Parts: sequence; structure tokens; C-alpha cells
Amino acid sequence: MNIDMIRAAASRAKGHVRRTPLLNSPFLDEIAGRRVLVKPECLQHTGSFKFRGGWSALSALEPDTRRKGVIAFSSGNHAQGVALAAKLHDIPAVIIMPEDAPALKIANTRAFGAEVILYDRVNGDRDAIGAKLAADQGLTLIKPFDEPQVIAGQGTCGLEIAEQAADVGVETADVLVCCGGGGLTSGIALALQADAPGLRARPVEPEGFDDVKRSLASGRIERNNMQAGSICDAIVTPSPGEITFPIMQRLCGPGLAVPDDDCLRAMADAFLRLKIVLEPAGAVALAAALYHPETVQGDAVIVIASGGNVDPGLFTDALTRFSV
Amino acid sequence: MNIDMIRAAASRAKGHVRRTPLLNSPFLDEIAGRRVLVKPECLQHTGSFKFRGGWSALSALEPDTRRKGVIAFSSGNHAQGVALAAKLHDIPAVIIMPEDAPALKIANTRAFGAEVILYDRVNGDRDAIGAKLAADQGLTLIKPFDEPQVIAGQGTCGLEIAEQAADVGVETADVLVCCGGGGLTSGIALALQADAPGLRARPVEPEGFDDVKRSLASGRIERNNMQAGSICDAIVTPSPGEITFPIMQRLCGPGLAVPDDDCLRAMADAFLRLKIVLEPAGAVALAAALYHPETVQGDAVIVIASGGNVDPGLFTDALTRFSV
Repeated sequence: MNIDMIRAAASRAKGHVRRTPLLNSPFLDEIAGRRVLVKPECLQHTGSFKFRGGWSALSALEPDTRRKGVIAFSSGNHAQGVALAAKLHDIPAVIIMPEDAPALKIANTRAFGAEVILYDRVNGDRDAIGAKLAADQGLTLIKPFDEPQVIAGQGTCGLEIAEQAADVGVETADVLVCCGGGGLTSGIALALQADAPGLRARPVEPEGFDDVKRSLASGRIERNNMQAGSICDAIVTPSPGEITFPIMQRLCGPGLAVPDDDCLRAMADAFLRLKIVLEPAGAVALAAALYHPETVQGDAVIVIASGGNVDPGLFTDALTRFSV
Repeated sequence: MNIDMIRAAASRAKGHVRRTPLLNSPFLDEIAGRRVLVKPECLQHTGSFKFRGGWSALSALEPDTRRKGVIAFSSGNHAQGVALAAKLHDIPAVIIMPEDAPALKIANTRAFGAEVILYDRVNGDRDAIGAKLAADQGLTLIKPFDEPQVIAGQGTCGLEIAEQAADVGVETADVLVCCGGGGLTSGIALALQADAPGLRARPVEPEGFDDVKRSLASGRIERNNMQAGSICDAIVTPSPGEITFPIMQRLCGPGLAVPDDDCLRAMADAFLRLKIVLEPAGAVALAAALYHPETVQGDAVIVIASGGNVDPGLFTDALTRFSV
């Protein structure tokens, strides 16, 4: 896993993956007490950064292997990223999703042409289901984060940040990244190390599911006690990955954790001030930057707004409670 | 009024005005039955394209004139565009707004440091109020659309479209533009004539306030009977401008008009599929492209999503009624 793989992924991404802009608002600067620069990956194809990794992984497969199809496990954003990448490659995709995944994510994954198989998150054995399907149909498993070509794809977001931060004169800053298993965080960290060494990636998680934060603090892989119960469904993972953790350990600053209500408030502020739609998990980093500025250093902070696949009812709740 | 003014405005805009991306979604393509490319000017500074014109006009003033300050009339988006441009130039701004303008727009204009004076839309004489203030304080009036440097600023959006459409292989298409007085429409039309002659600008208005559509059809400036009563407050103007109309007459295709409910539905689809926040007036062009595809020609359509300054309650109503 190295920067050359990220640059190769960026080359394969040209004309397929969207280069998202870097947004800002004086209102957000005022809340945070410093410049806040937001990378809206909700504007990426499929509504989250996950299309970067999905495209990277599929485009890196040997054509003969790819033709047989792919399989993925996901609560929804990786599902959509792989499903659309498969559709664009005109190959079959099977996606195994928990039956309590957001309705919008399940519907979109199906709309991209994937076969969706739902399982019971508590009692089901998704690995057994997936292994049988993969063996029967010759499908290639595309892991959500602990997979070098997926990390390389997510890292393309970091290459863009390095360029865009330089364009607006920001050379040193914390880069807050919404973090589940660490694919996006470790990919960005590798890209920044190469192209913008003054920028430091830091993972942000929901309180109660801060396995990466605790792992970075203890120096070994820690696990969450719960696997459900946060509105941040997209980034509730049991533990950091075996590939992603050592990268984060080597390159990232300390992790952060924010309560769910702060995510809803950040969704409302992103609606009001940036005119973008975020899902709770996509708003954790913005929440940390805006409402916990004491945990960040420097005159500027860069924030990944990683996804916007939120059901309308939950979005409406966030606006009703937190937009004034 | 010519293309050189637009290119000069683009040059003054560098580093100040945001280059917005060109978005798309397979879901929207399916609704419209053709490729739909959306230019989200809601992501522009101040949440609408109006900052382009405000920045262009203020940056074109002689420094001695500019220093004394500026004045503008606006229901909200031009207000914010001028107010932020004035703040960034560190000069005073007075904005005269109707007292029934959306609360968010009034609050934002004040937050940008402008002095806001509210008037009664039905009985007040805003021109008299403005003339007295301008004379007393030596302020320069920045008109919302019938002003060459404002049109030049809005035209920078057209230069970007010409480049971005070529990047995705679109050479001939209708470009649907949310239209009030015609500043954005005529500026884009001039830019496209020069840089992408296969792209044709067409104004889109709310039903009942389709003065531009009727003016283009009759060949002379027509007026609306009403001046209020649409949720599309941002583009309810009495008639096209004396500068903008001849440009539109020379360069634009026929106008379109859509009912208010279609704007709300387009807001919901933009939320679901593009993850952007639109106000009703900013969604008229998208509404025409999605729900009235028979009025458009060609394999692709380009849509300006011109603004996103919507009060949360109205946005919530749109989601509740139209997102399924």
C-alpha cells in the first residue's frame, strides 16, 4: 500500500470519478473560530466517497476476473459505490446488506442494477452467505475498507485536498475525516504525506463507536462493544482494519468522537450555510470542527463531508430540531 | 455589453468567485429521458449565482467611487451577493429589501455587514427611499440585472458551462436558466454564443410570472400582472430589462414556465439525487427539464440550479410532500 497505487487509482478515475470542490462559509468560520474548508464528498457519484474506492477496485481487476462479477457487504454507501461501478463496467454485482439499512440506500443499490440480499444484522451470518455466493458464481469480494485498491481509490480524495488547500493558501491544518474502518482516513493520510506534509489526517467517529480513536490511543486494535445504535450507520464498524490501522497509526493525529446530536446539528448548518445534504455519518467531522474547536489546532481546519444518503424523514428531523 | 466584458469579469473573479462543478445522476437522466447536467450555483458564495454579478460590479468600480459604498434593491439573493462583495472590499453597503423577503435572506444580508432597510412591497416607494439614501451618502446603485457589469459577472457562469459541457462531450443542448429580470440568462447566452455556439440558453420562469417567455413570444417587453404570490420570490420581477431583453431576443430559445408544485418536487429530487439544497426559484429550470421533457430538444439538457437560500420550513414541506 503506497502512494503510487493512489496515483494509479487517480489516473484510472479520470473522467469517471467526480472532482469535488472545496467549500467554505463565513458563518461556519465564525462558529469554529477559524477557517473551515469542507470537501463535500456527498456530491460524489452515488452520494458518498465510496464510489472512489469501488471504481478503483473494479477498474484494477483483470478483465477476465471482473467479467464474472463482484460481491460486497455494506450498510449502504459501499454498496452503492460498488453497484454503480459494476453497472458502468457492465458486470454483475451482488450486495449483502443488513435488513435495517436505510431504505434509500437499499433502493438506490437495487436501482443501480445490483442484486441485493438482506440479512439479519444480529443473528445472520453474512460471511457464510457471502462465501457461498462468491464460490458458486465466481464473484470477487470487494471489501469495504481493508483492501489496498479500495484504500487507493479513497486516497484520490486526499490528492485533491492537497492541491485545493494549496490553492487557498492553507499549508498546515488538521484534516478531519469521517471514519468507519479507516479506508478513507488511511488513503487520505497517505496522499497528504506525499503531497501536503503539513496537513495531518485525523479520524472522527460517533461517541460509543470510537474504536479507531481508542486503538490509536492504546496502540493496538480495539473493538466496539456495540454494532448498532448510532444514527451514523455508515461508519459503525467493529474495529479498524489490519491494513488501515498501521497506516493510521503511523500517519494520523489523535482521533475525535462526537455525540449523535452534534451530527444532526452539523447537518442543519451544512444545509443552511453550504447548501449541501449530509447524512449523520457524513457530518461527524464537520460536527467536530464546528462544536469542538478546542480539540483542533491551527488557523484553518479541513473537513471531509463524506456522504449524503439520508432518508428524508431523518433530514427533516435535523432541520426541525437544529435550524433556527 | 459584449463577450470581452464577461472575460474581464472572469479575470477579476479569479480566487474570489467559486467555480461550481457540473453534477449529474442516473436517476435524473431516467426521469427526464435524456442526460441531465446540473450546474449547482447554490454552492456559489452566498448560496446563489448573484455573488458573481455583485463581485463583478464592485470590482469594476473606480476605487474612489467604490470607497463611498454601494446600495441595492433586492428580495434577497442580489442583496447577499452585493453585501458579501462589499464586505470583502471593506466598503459600506445599504440594501433595501421587501419586508416579506425570506427571513434567512434578511438575516444573512445583515450578517454580511450590510445595513438592511425594509419596505412595504405594496405601498412603499423603494425607488424614492433608495434615491434619497444614494444622494445623501454618495452610494453607487448596483442594479440587480439591467447593468452591464452585473450581466458580465453572471456570464462567467456561461464560460464555465462551455468548458464543462465540452469536457463531458456535450456540444449541442438546451441550457435552461432560472430567469427573473434576465441578467443570468443574457450573460450565459452571450458566453455560450462565443464559446459553445451549439448550446442555446432558454429562460425558465414560474407560471403566472412568465414575463420573459411572453416577451420573447410577442417580440416586445411584456409585464406581469402580479408582483407577488409565487414561492419563487427570487425571480418574480415585473418585466425583462431594457439591456437584457434585446440580448435574450437575439440569442435565446423560447421560454418555459412551470407551476410552483413542480419546483417543490424538483427540490426533493435534487435533495435525493444530487445532495444539494435548492430554493423554489433555483429549481424552476430543473423542474422544466425533469417533468416537462417534451418542451426540450436533444440528447442532453443543461440546467442551472441558481440558488439555495430557502427557509428550513419550506424545504421540509417540499421533502414531506415530494420525496418518496
